[in-house]
Amino acid sequence: MDVAVNDLTQIRDALRRFADERDWDQFHSPKNLAMALSVEAAELLEHFQWVDGEASKQPGEAELEEIRAEMADVLLYLIRIADKLGTDLIEAAHAKIKLNESKYPVDKSRGSSKKYTEL
Amino acid sequence: MDVAVNDLTQIRDALRRFADERDWDQFHSPKNLAMALSVEAAELLEHFQWVDGEASKQPGEAELEEIRAEMADVLLYLIRIADKLGTDLIEAAHAKIKLNESKYPVDKSRGSSKKYTEL
Amino acid sequence: MDVAVNDLTQIRDALRRFADERDWDQFHSPKNLAMALSVEAAELLEHFQWVDGEASKQPGEAELEEIRAEMADVLLYLIRIADKLGTDLIEAAHAKIKLNESKYPVDKSRGSSKKYTEL
Amino acid sequence: MDVAVNDLTQIRDALRRFADERDWDQFHSPKNLAMALSVEAAELLEHFQWVDGEASKQPGEAELEEIRAEMADVLLYLIRIADKLGTDLIEAAHAKIKLNESKYPVDKSRGSSKKYTEL
Repeated sequence: MDVAVNDLTQIRDALRRFADERDWDQFHSPKNLAMALSVEAAELLEHFQWVDGEASKQPGEAELEEIRAEMADVLLYLIRIADKLGTDLIEAAHAKIKLNESKYPVDKSRGSSKKYTEL
Repeated sequence: MDVAVNDLTQIRDALRRFADERDWDQFHSPKNLAMALSVEAAELLEHFQWVDGEASKQPGEAELEEIRAEMADVLLYLIRIADKLGTDLIEAAHAKIKLNESKYPVDKSRGSSKKYTEL
Repeated sequence: MDVAVNDLTQIRDALRRFADERDWDQFHSPKNLAMALSVEAAELLEHFQWVDGEASKQPGEAELEEIRAEMADVLLYLIRIADKLGTDLIEAAHAKIKLNESKYPVDKSRGSSKKYTEL
Repeated sequence: MDVAVNDLTQIRDALRRFADERDWDQFHSPKNLAMALSVEAAELLEHFQWVDGEASKQPGEAELEEIRAEMADVLLYLIRIADKLGTDLIEAAHAKIKLNESKYPVDKSRGSSKKYTEL
Protein backbone atom coordinates (compact mmCIF):
# COMPACT_ATOMS: atom_id res chain seq x y z
CA MET A 1 0.00 0.00 0.00
CA ASP A 2 1.30 3.39 -0.95
CA VAL A 3 1.16 5.69 2.04
CA ALA A 4 3.52 8.32 0.68
CA VAL A 5 0.78 10.19 -1.16
CA ASN A 6 1.29 13.90 -0.88
CA ASP A 7 -1.85 15.44 0.58
CA LEU A 8 -1.67 18.48 -1.65
CA THR A 9 -1.37 16.24 -4.70
CA GLN A 10 -4.74 14.66 -3.91
CA ILE A 11 -6.33 18.09 -3.62
CA ARG A 12 -4.64 19.24 -6.82
CA ASP A 13 -6.11 16.26 -8.65
CA ALA A 14 -9.57 16.86 -7.21
CA LEU A 15 -9.39 20.49 -8.38
CA ARG A 16 -8.31 19.41 -11.86
CA ARG A 17 -11.31 17.11 -12.11
CA PHE A 18 -13.60 19.80 -10.73
CA ALA A 19 -12.47 22.38 -13.30
CA ASP A 20 -12.42 19.86 -16.11
CA GLU A 21 -16.00 18.68 -15.50
CA ARG A 22 -17.18 22.31 -15.57
CA ASP A 23 -14.99 23.45 -18.47
CA TRP A 24 -13.48 26.09 -16.20
CA ASP A 25 -9.89 25.90 -17.38
CA GLN A 26 -10.69 28.74 -19.74
CA PHE A 27 -11.10 31.03 -16.70
CA HIS A 28 -8.14 29.69 -14.71
CA SER A 29 -5.20 31.73 -15.89
CA PRO A 30 -2.66 32.46 -13.13
CA LYS A 31 -3.78 36.10 -13.35
CA ASN A 32 -7.43 35.30 -12.64
CA LEU A 33 -6.58 32.72 -10.00
CA ALA A 34 -4.31 35.19 -8.20
CA MET A 35 -7.23 37.64 -8.14
CA ALA A 36 -9.52 34.97 -6.72
CA LEU A 37 -6.92 34.08 -4.09
CA SER A 38 -6.66 37.76 -3.06
CA VAL A 39 -10.43 37.97 -2.76
CA GLU A 40 -10.51 34.90 -0.50
CA ALA A 41 -7.63 36.27 1.59
CA ALA A 42 -9.72 39.41 2.12
CA GLU A 43 -12.77 37.36 3.09
CA LEU A 44 -10.61 35.73 5.73
CA LEU A 45 -9.35 39.16 6.80
CA GLU A 46 -12.89 40.47 7.13
CA HIS A 47 -13.54 38.16 10.08
CA PHE A 48 -10.85 39.91 12.07
CA GLN A 49 -11.24 43.54 11.03
CA TRP A 50 -13.04 44.93 14.07
CA VAL A 51 -11.69 42.65 16.82
CA ASP A 52 -8.35 43.11 18.55
CA GLY A 53 -5.51 40.59 18.44
CA GLU A 54 -6.52 38.84 21.65
CA ALA A 55 -10.15 38.41 20.63
CA SER A 56 -9.06 37.06 17.24
CA LYS A 57 -7.61 34.05 19.04
CA GLN A 58 -11.03 32.98 20.31
CA PRO A 59 -13.64 33.22 17.57
CA GLY A 60 -17.03 31.70 18.37
CA GLU A 61 -17.80 28.26 16.98
CA ALA A 62 -20.00 29.51 14.11
CA GLU A 63 -17.43 32.13 13.13
CA LEU A 64 -14.62 29.57 13.29
CA GLU A 65 -16.52 27.43 10.79
CA GLU A 66 -16.65 30.36 8.38
CA ILE A 67 -12.99 31.16 8.97
CA ARG A 68 -12.11 27.53 8.19
CA ALA A 69 -14.00 27.73 4.91
CA GLU A 70 -12.12 30.91 3.93
CA MET A 71 -8.77 29.32 4.79
CA ALA A 72 -9.76 26.35 2.63
CA ASP A 73 -10.61 28.67 -0.27
CA VAL A 74 -7.20 30.33 -0.02
CA LEU A 75 -5.49 26.93 -0.07
CA LEU A 76 -7.56 25.67 -3.00
CA TYR A 77 -6.71 28.66 -5.20
CA LEU A 78 -3.07 28.51 -4.13
CA ILE A 79 -2.82 24.84 -5.11
CA ARG A 80 -4.53 25.64 -8.41
CA ILE A 81 -2.10 28.45 -9.29
CA ALA A 82 0.85 26.24 -8.35
CA ASP A 83 -0.54 23.52 -10.60
CA LYS A 84 -0.95 25.92 -13.51
CA LEU A 85 2.60 27.19 -13.10
CA GLY A 86 4.14 23.77 -12.47
CA THR A 87 5.34 24.63 -8.98
CA ASP A 88 5.78 22.29 -6.02
CA LEU A 89 4.31 24.25 -3.10
CA ILE A 90 5.85 22.07 -0.39
CA GLU A 91 9.30 22.46 -1.87
CA ALA A 92 8.79 26.21 -2.28
CA ALA A 93 7.66 26.50 1.34
CA HIS A 94 10.74 24.69 2.66
CA ALA A 95 13.00 26.84 0.48
CA LYS A 96 11.31 29.98 1.82
CA ILE A 97 11.75 28.92 5.45
CA LYS A 98 15.43 28.37 4.76
CA LEU A 99 15.70 31.80 3.16
CA ASN A 100 13.86 33.42 6.09
CA GLU A 101 16.32 31.83 8.48
CA SER A 102 19.16 33.71 6.82
CA LYS A 103 17.14 36.96 6.47
CA TYR A 104 16.09 36.90 10.12
CA PRO A 105 19.03 35.71 12.23
CA VAL A 106 17.86 34.83 15.73
CA ASP A 107 20.14 37.27 17.51
CA LYS A 108 19.05 40.26 15.43
CA SER A 109 15.34 39.55 15.10
CA ARG A 110 14.52 38.21 18.56
CA GLY A 111 11.45 39.98 19.92
CA SER A 112 11.42 42.42 17.01
CA SER A 113 8.78 42.81 14.28
CA LYS A 114 11.11 44.80 12.04
CA LYS A 115 11.43 43.85 8.40
CA TYR A 116 14.72 42.20 7.46
CA THR A 117 15.69 45.26 5.46
CA GLU A 118 15.66 47.29 8.70
CA LEU A 119 17.46 44.86 11.00
CA MET B 1 10.23 3.84 8.35
CA ASP B 2 7.35 6.18 8.76
CA VAL B 3 6.41 7.65 5.42
CA ALA B 4 2.92 8.82 6.38
CA VAL B 5 4.09 12.17 7.66
CA ASN B 6 1.76 14.95 6.59
CA ASP B 7 3.77 17.47 4.61
CA LEU B 8 1.96 20.44 6.09
CA THR B 9 2.61 19.13 9.58
CA GLN B 10 6.36 19.30 8.99
CA ILE B 11 6.06 22.89 7.79
CA ARG B 12 3.81 23.77 10.72
CA ASP B 13 6.44 22.44 13.10
CA ALA B 14 9.25 24.31 11.35
CA LEU B 15 7.22 27.53 11.64
CA ARG B 16 6.59 26.91 15.33
CA ARG B 17 10.32 26.53 15.93
CA PHE B 18 11.05 29.59 13.81
CA ALA B 19 8.63 31.80 15.77
CA ASP B 20 9.65 30.33 19.08
CA GLU B 21 13.36 30.97 18.54
CA ARG B 22 12.60 34.61 17.67
CA ASP B 23 9.96 35.16 20.36
CA TRP B 24 7.48 36.09 17.65
CA ASP B 25 4.39 34.42 19.05
CA GLN B 26 3.53 37.77 20.63
CA PHE B 27 2.94 39.15 17.10
CA HIS B 28 1.18 36.11 15.69
CA SER B 29 -2.47 36.65 16.54
CA PRO B 30 -4.84 35.35 13.85
CA LYS B 31 -5.70 38.99 13.14
CA ASN B 32 -2.10 39.96 12.40
CA LEU B 33 -1.39 36.75 10.50
CA ALA B 34 -4.46 37.27 8.32
CA MET B 35 -3.14 40.75 7.49
CA ALA B 36 0.26 39.32 6.60
CA LEU B 37 -1.39 36.67 4.42
CA SER B 38 -3.37 39.37 2.58
CA VAL B 39 -0.18 41.34 2.00
CA GLU B 40 1.55 38.28 0.54
CA ALA B 41 -1.48 37.50 -1.64
CA ALA B 42 -1.20 41.04 -3.03
CA GLU B 43 2.52 40.62 -3.68
CA LEU B 44 1.62 37.55 -5.72
CA LEU B 45 -1.11 39.54 -7.49
CA GLU B 46 1.35 42.31 -8.33
CA HIS B 47 3.23 40.00 -10.68
CA PHE B 48 0.14 39.66 -12.86
CA GLN B 49 -1.37 43.15 -12.74
CA TRP B 50 -0.29 44.47 -16.14
CA VAL B 51 -0.17 41.27 -18.18
CA ASP B 52 -3.17 39.58 -19.75
CA GLY B 53 -4.39 36.10 -18.87
CA GLU B 54 -2.45 34.36 -21.63
CA ALA B 55 0.85 36.04 -20.76
CA SER B 56 0.35 35.18 -17.09
CA LYS B 57 0.70 31.51 -18.02
CA GLN B 58 4.26 32.02 -19.23
CA PRO B 59 6.24 34.16 -16.80
CA GLY B 60 9.98 34.38 -17.43
CA GLU B 61 12.26 32.20 -15.31
CA ALA B 62 13.37 35.02 -12.98
CA GLU B 63 9.79 36.16 -12.47
CA LEU B 64 8.62 32.60 -11.85
CA GLU B 65 11.16 32.33 -9.05
CA GLU B 66 9.68 35.42 -7.41
CA ILE B 67 6.14 34.14 -7.93
CA ARG B 68 7.12 30.86 -6.26
CA ALA B 69 8.47 32.73 -3.25
CA GLU B 70 5.21 34.70 -2.92
CA MET B 71 3.14 31.51 -3.17
CA ALA B 72 5.33 30.02 -0.44
CA ASP B 73 4.72 33.08 1.77
CA VAL B 74 0.97 32.71 1.36
CA LEU B 75 1.17 29.03 2.31
CA LEU B 76 3.39 29.70 5.32
CA TYR B 77 1.03 32.29 6.80
CA LEU B 78 -1.96 30.10 6.04
CA ILE B 79 -0.41 27.15 7.87
CA ARG B 80 0.45 29.45 10.76
CA ILE B 81 -3.11 30.79 11.10
CA ALA B 82 -4.51 27.27 10.90
CA ASP B 83 -2.09 26.21 13.64
CA LYS B 84 -3.12 29.11 15.88
CA LEU B 85 -6.81 28.33 15.39
CA GLY B 86 -6.39 24.54 15.69
CA THR B 87 -7.63 23.85 12.17
CA ASP B 88 -6.66 20.97 9.90
CA LEU B 89 -6.19 22.64 6.51
CA ILE B 90 -6.26 19.44 4.48
CA GLU B 91 -9.54 18.39 6.05
CA ALA B 92 -10.99 21.88 5.54
CA ALA B 93 -9.91 21.83 1.88
CA HIS B 94 -11.60 18.49 1.21
CA ALA B 95 -14.77 19.67 2.97
CA LYS B 96 -14.78 22.82 0.82
CA ILE B 97 -14.39 20.87 -2.42
CA LYS B 98 -17.36 18.74 -1.38
CA LEU B 99 -19.40 21.86 -0.62
CA ASN B 100 -18.42 23.42 -3.95
CA GLU B 101 -19.62 20.31 -5.75
CA SER B 102 -23.11 20.89 -4.40
CA LYS B 103 -22.98 24.68 -4.95
CA TYR B 104 -21.80 24.27 -8.53
CA PRO B 105 -23.65 21.33 -10.12
CA VAL B 106 -21.95 20.34 -13.38
CA ASP B 107 -25.03 20.85 -15.55
CA LYS B 108 -25.70 24.37 -14.32
CA SER B 109 -22.15 25.69 -14.05
CA ARG B 110 -20.55 24.16 -17.14
CA GLY B 111 -18.68 26.85 -19.07
CA SER B 112 -20.07 29.59 -16.83
CA SER B 113 -18.13 31.84 -14.45
CA LYS B 114 -21.26 32.90 -12.58
CA LYS B 115 -21.31 32.81 -8.81
CA TYR B 116 -23.41 30.00 -7.31
CA THR B 117 -25.88 32.58 -6.03
CA GLU B 118 -26.64 33.51 -9.64
CA LEU B 119 -26.87 30.05 -11.19
CA MET C 1 -12.42 83.52 -10.74
CA ASP C 2 -13.62 79.97 -10.79
CA VAL C 3 -13.32 78.45 -7.37
CA ALA C 4 -15.77 75.63 -7.84
CA VAL C 5 -13.25 73.26 -9.35
CA ASN C 6 -13.71 69.75 -8.06
CA ASP C 7 -10.44 68.58 -6.55
CA LEU C 8 -10.81 65.04 -7.82
CA THR C 9 -11.45 66.36 -11.32
CA GLN C 10 -8.03 68.03 -11.37
CA ILE C 11 -6.38 64.81 -10.29
CA ARG C 12 -8.36 62.81 -12.83
CA ASP C 13 -7.12 65.14 -15.56
CA ALA C 14 -3.53 64.92 -14.39
CA LEU C 15 -3.78 61.11 -14.47
CA ARG C 16 -5.23 61.20 -17.98
CA ARG C 17 -2.29 63.29 -19.18
CA PHE C 18 0.15 61.06 -17.33
CA ALA C 19 -1.19 57.88 -18.96
CA ASP C 20 -1.55 59.51 -22.34
CA GLU C 21 2.04 60.76 -22.43
CA ARG C 22 3.26 57.25 -21.60
CA ASP C 23 0.81 55.37 -23.83
CA TRP C 24 -0.42 53.49 -20.79
CA ASP C 25 -4.12 53.39 -21.60
CA GLN C 26 -3.52 50.00 -23.15
CA PHE C 27 -2.76 48.65 -19.64
CA HIS C 28 -5.52 50.53 -17.83
CA SER C 29 -8.54 48.28 -18.08
CA PRO C 30 -10.78 48.40 -14.99
CA LYS C 31 -9.64 44.83 -14.30
CA ASN C 32 -5.95 45.74 -14.21
CA LEU C 33 -6.57 48.96 -12.32
CA ALA C 34 -8.61 47.13 -9.69
CA MET C 35 -5.66 44.75 -9.24
CA ALA C 36 -3.28 47.68 -8.86
CA LEU C 37 -5.61 49.30 -6.32
CA SER C 38 -5.71 46.06 -4.29
CA VAL C 39 -1.92 45.89 -4.34
CA GLU C 40 -1.65 49.46 -3.04
CA ALA C 41 -4.28 48.79 -0.37
CA ALA C 42 -2.11 45.88 0.79
CA GLU C 43 0.99 48.07 0.85
CA LEU C 44 -0.91 50.40 3.15
CA LEU C 45 -2.02 47.43 5.25
CA GLU C 46 1.56 46.21 5.55
CA HIS C 47 2.47 49.25 7.66
CA PHE C 48 0.03 48.15 10.33
CA GLN C 49 0.37 44.38 10.31
CA TRP C 50 2.49 43.86 13.42
CA VAL C 51 1.39 46.83 15.56
CA ASP C 52 -1.76 46.92 17.66
CA GLY C 53 -4.62 49.35 17.13
CA GLU C 54 -3.32 51.91 19.62
CA ALA C 55 0.18 52.00 18.15
CA SER C 56 -1.26 52.36 14.65
CA LYS C 57 -2.57 55.78 15.69
CA GLN C 58 0.93 57.08 16.25
CA PRO C 59 3.27 56.08 13.43
CA GLY C 60 6.71 57.70 13.44
CA GLU C 61 7.27 60.62 11.06
CA ALA C 62 9.19 58.58 8.46
CA GLU C 63 6.57 55.84 8.51
CA LEU C 64 3.76 58.37 8.24
CA GLU C 65 5.34 59.71 5.06
CA GLU C 66 5.29 56.22 3.56
CA ILE C 67 1.71 55.67 4.71
CA ARG C 68 0.70 58.93 3.06
CA ALA C 69 2.26 57.82 -0.21
CA GLU C 70 0.35 54.52 -0.08
CA MET C 71 -2.93 56.32 0.63
CA ALA C 72 -2.22 58.55 -2.35
CA ASP C 73 -1.63 55.51 -4.57
CA VAL C 74 -4.97 54.03 -3.52
CA LEU C 75 -6.72 57.31 -4.33
CA LEU C 76 -4.99 57.66 -7.70
CA TYR C 77 -6.01 54.20 -8.87
CA LEU C 78 -9.52 54.70 -7.53
CA ILE C 79 -9.92 57.95 -9.47
CA ARG C 80 -8.55 56.23 -12.56
CA ILE C 81 -11.02 53.33 -12.38
CA ALA C 82 -13.88 55.75 -11.79
CA ASP C 83 -12.76 57.71 -14.85
CA LYS C 84 -12.62 54.59 -17.00
CA LEU C 85 -16.10 53.53 -15.88
CA GLY C 86 -17.59 57.03 -16.08
CA THR C 87 -18.43 57.20 -12.38
CA ASP C 88 -18.60 60.28 -10.17
CA LEU C 89 -16.83 59.18 -6.99
CA ILE C 90 -18.09 62.06 -4.84
CA GLU C 91 -21.68 61.33 -5.79
CA ALA C 92 -21.16 57.59 -5.20
CA ALA C 93 -19.66 58.32 -1.78
CA HIS C 94 -22.62 60.45 -0.70
CA ALA C 95 -25.05 57.81 -1.96
CA LYS C 96 -23.19 55.14 0.04
CA ILE C 97 -23.26 57.18 3.24
CA LYS C 98 -27.01 57.57 2.81
CA LEU C 99 -27.40 53.83 2.27
CA ASN C 100 -25.24 53.07 5.31
CA GLU C 101 -27.47 55.29 7.42
CA SER C 102 -30.42 53.05 6.64
CA LYS C 103 -28.40 49.84 7.00
CA TYR C 104 -26.99 50.89 10.35
CA PRO C 105 -29.72 52.65 12.35
CA VAL C 106 -28.21 54.45 15.32
CA ASP C 107 -30.25 52.63 17.95
CA LYS C 108 -29.33 49.16 16.69
CA SER C 109 -25.69 49.73 15.78
CA ARG C 110 -24.56 51.96 18.63
CA GLY C 111 -21.34 50.59 20.11
CA SER C 112 -21.57 47.42 18.02
CA SER C 113 -19.21 46.27 15.25
CA LYS C 114 -21.72 43.76 13.88
CA LYS C 115 -22.42 43.66 10.18
CA TYR C 116 -25.80 45.04 9.15
CA THR C 117 -26.93 41.54 8.19
CA GLU C 118 -26.52 40.52 11.84
CA LEU C 119 -28.13 43.51 13.53
CA MET D 1 -21.41 82.32 -0.61
CA ASP D 2 -18.55 79.97 -0.03
CA VAL D 3 -18.09 77.73 -3.03
CA ALA D 4 -14.56 76.66 -2.28
CA VAL D 5 -15.62 73.78 -0.07
CA ASN D 6 -13.41 70.77 -0.57
CA ASP D 7 -15.60 67.82 -1.55
CA LEU D 8 -13.59 65.36 0.49
CA THR D 9 -13.92 67.61 3.54
CA GLN D 10 -17.69 67.33 3.39
CA ILE D 11 -17.47 63.55 3.22
CA ARG D 12 -14.93 63.48 6.03
CA ASP D 13 -17.32 65.46 8.21
CA ALA D 14 -20.25 63.22 7.34
CA LEU D 15 -18.16 60.18 8.31
CA ARG D 16 -17.18 61.80 11.59
CA ARG D 17 -20.82 62.37 12.44
CA PHE D 18 -21.72 58.85 11.34
CA ALA D 19 -19.08 57.24 13.58
CA ASP D 20 -19.79 59.59 16.45
CA GLU D 21 -23.53 58.87 16.48
CA ARG D 22 -22.80 55.13 16.59
CA ASP D 23 -19.88 55.32 19.02
CA TRP D 24 -17.68 53.63 16.45
CA ASP D 25 -14.49 55.57 17.02
CA GLN D 26 -13.43 52.80 19.38
CA PHE D 27 -13.18 50.48 16.33
CA HIS D 28 -11.62 52.98 13.95
CA SER D 29 -7.90 52.65 14.53
CA PRO D 30 -5.83 53.13 11.36
CA LYS D 31 -5.00 49.42 11.62
CA ASN D 32 -8.64 48.32 11.55
CA LEU D 33 -9.59 50.89 8.91
CA ALA D 34 -6.74 49.73 6.66
CA MET D 35 -8.09 46.18 6.98
CA ALA D 36 -11.59 47.36 6.07
CA LEU D 37 -10.20 49.26 3.09
CA SER D 38 -8.38 46.14 1.88
CA VAL D 39 -11.58 44.12 2.20
CA GLU D 40 -13.50 46.67 0.12
CA ALA D 41 -10.72 46.77 -2.48
CA ALA D 42 -11.09 42.99 -2.78
CA GLU D 43 -14.85 43.28 -3.15
CA LEU D 44 -14.21 45.63 -6.05
CA LEU D 45 -11.65 43.19 -7.45
CA GLU D 46 -14.14 40.33 -7.23
CA HIS D 47 -16.29 41.92 -9.94
CA PHE D 48 -13.45 41.58 -12.43
CA GLN D 49 -11.87 38.25 -11.49
CA TRP D 50 -13.28 36.04 -14.26
CA VAL D 51 -13.65 38.55 -17.10
CA ASP D 52 -10.83 39.69 -19.35
CA GLY D 53 -9.59 43.27 -19.61
CA GLU D 54 -11.82 44.18 -22.54
CA ALA D 55 -14.98 42.87 -20.91
CA SER D 56 -14.14 44.71 -17.70
CA LYS D 57 -14.63 47.98 -19.59
CA GLN D 58 -18.30 47.21 -20.23
CA PRO D 59 -19.99 45.86 -17.11
CA GLY D 60 -23.76 45.52 -17.26
CA GLU D 61 -25.86 48.24 -15.62
CA ALA D 62 -26.68 46.21 -12.49
CA GLU D 63 -23.06 45.19 -12.06
CA LEU D 64 -21.88 48.77 -12.57
CA GLU D 65 -24.13 49.86 -9.71
CA GLU D 66 -22.44 47.32 -7.43
CA ILE D 67 -18.99 48.36 -8.65
CA ARG D 68 -19.84 51.98 -7.87
CA ALA D 69 -20.85 51.04 -4.34
CA GLU D 70 -17.55 49.21 -3.82
CA MET D 71 -15.56 52.17 -5.15
CA ALA D 72 -17.48 54.39 -2.73
CA ASP D 73 -16.61 52.08 0.16
CA VAL D 74 -12.92 52.25 -0.71
CA LEU D 75 -13.09 56.05 -0.80
CA LEU D 76 -14.97 56.28 2.48
CA TYR D 77 -12.44 54.17 4.38
CA LEU D 78 -9.57 56.01 2.74
CA ILE D 79 -10.95 59.39 3.82
CA ARG D 80 -11.51 58.00 7.30
CA ILE D 81 -7.90 56.76 7.66
CA ALA D 82 -6.59 60.06 6.34
CA ASP D 83 -8.72 61.87 8.90
CA LYS D 84 -7.44 59.69 11.73
CA LEU D 85 -3.83 60.28 10.69
CA GLY D 86 -4.27 63.99 9.95
CA THR D 87 -3.39 63.66 6.29
CA ASP D 88 -4.64 65.79 3.39
CA LEU D 89 -5.42 63.25 0.68
CA ILE D 90 -5.62 65.76 -2.16
CA GLU D 91 -2.21 67.15 -1.30
CA ALA D 92 -0.77 63.64 -0.95
CA ALA D 93 -2.20 62.68 -4.35
CA HIS D 94 -0.64 65.68 -6.09
CA ALA D 95 2.70 64.99 -4.40
CA LYS D 96 2.53 61.36 -5.58
CA ILE D 97 1.80 62.34 -9.18
CA LYS D 98 4.84 64.63 -9.08
CA LEU D 99 6.97 61.82 -7.70
CA ASN D 100 5.68 59.39 -10.33
CA GLU D 101 6.66 61.85 -13.05
CA SER D 102 10.27 61.63 -11.95
CA LYS D 103 10.15 57.86 -11.40
CA TYR D 104 8.61 57.25 -14.82
CA PRO D 105 10.23 59.61 -17.33
CA VAL D 106 8.21 59.66 -20.56
CA ASP D 107 11.05 58.53 -22.79
CA LYS D 108 11.89 55.48 -20.69
CA SER D 109 8.43 54.35 -19.73
CA ARG D 110 6.51 54.98 -22.93
CA GLY D 111 4.48 51.88 -23.85
CA SER D 112 6.12 49.86 -21.09
CA SER D 113 4.48 48.38 -17.98
CA LYS D 114 7.80 47.84 -16.23
CA LYS D 115 8.23 48.97 -12.64
CA TYR D 116 10.41 52.06 -12.21
CA THR D 117 13.06 49.93 -10.53
CA GLU D 118 13.46 48.00 -13.79
CA LEU D 119 13.49 50.89 -16.24
